[in-house]
Amino acid sequence: MEVVDAIAAAVQQPGVRLLHRTSDWDHNRSVLTVAGEPEAVLAGLFRAVAVAAERIDLRQQRGVHPRLGATDVVPLVPLEGVPLDECVALARRLGRRIGDELGLPVYFYEAAASRPERRNLADVRAGEYERLAEEIHLPQRQPDCGPASVGPAGAVIVGARPFLIAFNVFLKSNDVTIAKRIARSIRESSGGLPAVKALGLLVNDQAQVSMNLVDFRITPPHAVVARIAAEARLLGVEIDHSELIGLLPQDALLAAAAHALGLPSLGADRVVEMALRRAIDAGIPDSL
Amino acid sequence: MEVVDAIAAAVQQPGVRLLHRTSDWDHNRSVLTVAGEPEAVLAGLFRAVAVAAERIDLRQQRGVHPRLGATDVVPLVPLEGVPLDECVALARRLGRRIGDELGLPVYFYEAAASRPERRNLADVRAGEYERLAEEIHLPQRQPDCGPASVGPAGAVIVGARPFLIAFNVFLKSNDVTIAKRIARSIRESSGGLPAVKALGLLVNDQAQVSMNLVDFRITPPHAVVARIAAEARLLGVEIDHSELIGLLPQDALLAAAAHALGLPSLGADRVVEMALRRAIDAGIPDSL
Repeated sequence: MEVVDAIAAAVQQPGVRLLHRTSDWDHNRSVLTVAGEPEAVLAGLFRAVAVAAERIDLRQQRGVHPRLGATDVVPLVPLEGVPLDECVALARRLGRRIGDELGLPVYFYEAAASRPERRNLADVRAGEYERLAEEIHLPQRQPDCGPASVGPAGAVIVGARPFLIAFNVFLKSNDVTIAKRIARSIRESSGGLPAVKALGLLVNDQAQVSMNLVDFRITPPHAVVARIAAEARLLGVEIDHSELIGLLPQDALLAAAAHALGLPSLGADRVVEMALRRAIDAGIPDSL
Repeated sequence: MEVVDAIAAAVQQPGVRLLHRTSDWDHNRSVLTVAGEPEAVLAGLFRAVAVAAERIDLRQQRGVHPRLGATDVVPLVPLEGVPLDECVALARRLGRRIGDELGLPVYFYEAAASRPERRNLADVRAGEYERLAEEIHLPQRQPDCGPASVGPAGAVIVGARPFLIAFNVFLKSNDVTIAKRIARSIRESSGGLPAVKALGLLVNDQAQVSMNLVDFRITPPHAVVARIAAEARLLGVEIDHSELIGLLPQDALLAAAAHALGLPSLGADRVVEMALRRAIDAGIPDSL
């Protein structure tokens, strides 16, 4: 935790707000969520990557979550009107700086990818740190920035993408094969739900379906939970509880609540605090 | 709608924001939700009650929703730190002004009630306009303010209470007896869920369970929907959809989403827009 604290301190530049942080012992992975003006965020991220590279040695690091380096992945996400294109440009600048000034190999992914086969995070991360160390000299593993050599901090994957929801569902079972079967049946890559990535894991001796929902406007989290509940039932198990890693966008919240309440739709204008906030922000004249 | 428009125009004093309005043909009832500084809200409400009294004649008005007068009920609800006690004091002032200046009988209810048997809205409204016109001379129906006589605008019920969620669930059935049975089994008064009031109605030839959730921290709307779904199943019918009248508090939204997602809890700090807003409002230093 001392190392994670140092990284969290490093990211907090003037103009950058640390919105959330989470560390998971089994995954041996921490997720920091920061927001702010683009230039300030970029400076904070660069410092955080530098501290992680200094403090984390991939030759020692172990955990159930796959990783390519000390800073495994840095996704820049559009918020409050910043277009995705601008996040792509920022990701490219951050990657070049990490390569040039920290001497780490950098791969661009998703909207910032330099080639189609690098769009998908799992493909870029294939084989993790250990295999990259052996293969980085191969042409197909040539980094987008930085040296084609792997040190103790490994490589950094930098990109731009829509908001991703990292979401896990624990089953009332300690049988990892059930989690794996459900993961296979719900993930897009094996013909399941679009914009869903899923793995079956055993975490704390409990079967877990670990997911990335890469576009919640296509498949929202409540739909995934309903589908997992149905699949689990077929396999004779039940959902125990879910776990949200990081943050949820407000529109996913509204959609999940509408589902629970049986409402055909539910807008922010129907939530008293949001409606009041919107009326104040919009500067609606006091007297209409 | 011309009459409702005139009432909506009247309520919008400087400093009062009309957050939401809804009109329902079958209920023949409109709900306006306004927020603002207490004094401004009080002035707007008084004007709205005056316009309703002028434009609505209870001798002609019909609808499936019970009512005692042109302005049936005015609940003052605490928001953003105003205590319930202050809403009680405001309700009393508004009632006195309606009685004195508009010459309408006024009954105080809920936290503003003058006697225990007037706390409950349904008790105050018993027999509706028509029976009140016959009984207002009786001691037990003596109004709290204004004359003990009923004109074409009827009486006004004024009070203070926690946020109430008005919420209806439509069934896939045109059998009103099923809606009535479910209403009976879920409402507090017949041993059902605490803080739930429910009626079975036929609306648009569809069976509807019409509810007031008077304290969503005790029984939240998602729990009511789950219970109705279970009761309906026992009676061989299904929920078609729900309908929210007016607004929902943010905490009820978060609880409903947590339920849909299987999360043990979900705070506003886990929703990106809310977390960002909170960080900005709190004036957290840019650099921690």
